[in-house]
Amino acid sequence: MSLNNNSKRTVFYISDSTGITVEALGLCLLSHFEGLKLKQVRMPFIDSMEKAREAVEIINATQERDGVRAILCMTVVNPNIRALFHLTGGHCLDMFGTFVNPLSCELGMPANETIGMSRRVAGAEYRNRINAINFTLGHDDGITESGLKDADVILVGVSRCGKTPTSIYLAMQFGMRVANYPIIPEDLERNALPGTLIDYKDKIFGLTIDPLRLSKVRGERRPNSRYAELENCKSEVKRAEELMRREGISMLDSTSRSVEEISSLIMQQLSFKAAKNMLLN
Amino acid sequence: MSLNNNSKRTVFYISDSTGITVEALGLCLLSHFEGLKLKQVRMPFIDSMEKAREAVEIINATQERDGVRAILCMTVVNPNIRALFHLTGGHCLDMFGTFVNPLSCELGMPANETIGMSRRVAGAEYRNRINAINFTLGHDDGITESGLKDADVILVGVSRCGKTPTSIYLAMQFGMRVANYPIIPEDLERNALPGTLIDYKDKIFGLTIDPLRLSKVRGERRPNSRYAELENCKSEVKRAEELMRREGISMLDSTSRSVEEISSLIMQQLSFKAAKNMLLN
Repeated sequence: MSLNNNSKRTVFYISDSTGITVEALGLCLLSHFEGLKLKQVRMPFIDSMEKAREAVEIINATQERDGVRAILCMTVVNPNIRALFHLTGGHCLDMFGTFVNPLSCELGMPANETIGMSRRVAGAEYRNRINAINFTLGHDDGITESGLKDADVILVGVSRCGKTPTSIYLAMQFGMRVANYPIIPEDLERNALPGTLIDYKDKIFGLTIDPLRLSKVRGERRPNSRYAELENCKSEVKRAEELMRREGISMLDSTSRSVEEISSLIMQQLSFKAAKNMLLN
Repeated sequence: MSLNNNSKRTVFYISDSTGITVEALGLCLLSHFEGLKLKQVRMPFIDSMEKAREAVEIINATQERDGVRAILCMTVVNPNIRALFHLTGGHCLDMFGTFVNPLSCELGMPANETIGMSRRVAGAEYRNRINAINFTLGHDDGITESGLKDADVILVGVSRCGKTPTSIYLAMQFGMRVANYPIIPEDLERNALPGTLIDYKDKIFGLTIDPLRLSKVRGERRPNSRYAELENCKSEVKRAEELMRREGISMLDSTSRSVEEISSLIMQQLSFKAAKNMLLN
């Protein structure tokens, strides 16, 4: 077998649960090898020897076809199942095999080898996340002002600057109840935030965006409109930024940041604020 | 220092990016140690020696206070930054340190040590995900039938069985355009799916739920209503399941599965269907 025939190589994401985490980690590690393009195969819910044997057959056939070893990224708790995958001769990134025994020594306790697939559904944390999603959907785009008090975060910004996907990500990933509130031309004319927001400055975050990108995004929705015109976008963004700066609102730019990055920055700033408040009280 | 004074121990999730992946992986590994409750601290965006030094000071002070070594879960690309964290003496789960060199040998190419923070924003894959979220929000709860043709997945099920959070997760995580469509009492009376759905059976998935849970969920929304009554929920679920079974729709139970699990199962079934269609054509 050739050792670096990478253009033909396949990466398998193997998990006894959803495989979402190990796929994210694998993509993250592999993204540091420039120009590398591997075929990718998800193998979730491999939670029995029988399913593992079927998966191993596919991997062996793939390695035969590719003429090169596969990369196997694995989060599998059961050591017997893991052993089957190691026998394929693929290059294994084995999360449990690598980290669980050392952790077990460090903690001075044995690891439980059963799979807790539905444990997360039963807990309060899961219900909290689902409630946060429902709250957030009910408070999108300034639909109602009644929930501002109960929101953990309020996002403001001009129309189409990325508030909705960010709100939903904050709810889904971090269980935050998010309300978002558009800054509309009337607010810009008045040069003030809507009065209802004034009491909640501590949890307000502003999103901003490059006017060129904004014009493109708006143009997809309403082609050839004043709404999407570059000059109009430039003016709205400039005035919205001035307004947010004057009101002392933390501002984040969605042009070059993903919703994951913006959400993490918001979580980070919230914990700084919480730590600061603790010190002041 | 005591070695297994676990009740006082802290785990740090350290990343040069959002830290979302390494936190998920750390939680997954640690969940296999029963009864273990560690204090958790997120340290995202540690992308310079200066930020690393500040973080290291916090970790050292925490270890001093806890009287026990911290657990450090890390995805940090820069080896100099990683080295600083190893010097704290904490128990390191070092993703890059552990896996990147072996991967580099296997692939026969060097790893790029710069951080590609905003690489994901620029790509078509990211725009696709954001478009999928917008599509999915626009096709929630049978709002419109116009998008059924363009949807990648159509979710059906009785009101409040989990369609909305699942739709959004499928869009956010997998870039799927999802329409969801409630099965309402009128459909159950007629004992048939809405006619508009008939053409799309290949991409329809049904969600079902334990009537007791459904009654509780509905009760939170409309207490003491006929809608939330246990007998009514039992009857709706039973008839909806019969209807879906007869129409040959794949059914998934949201009672004991998280949105992540249901979404992964749907993705898995879609890839099986795609593979089958390829064989048939």
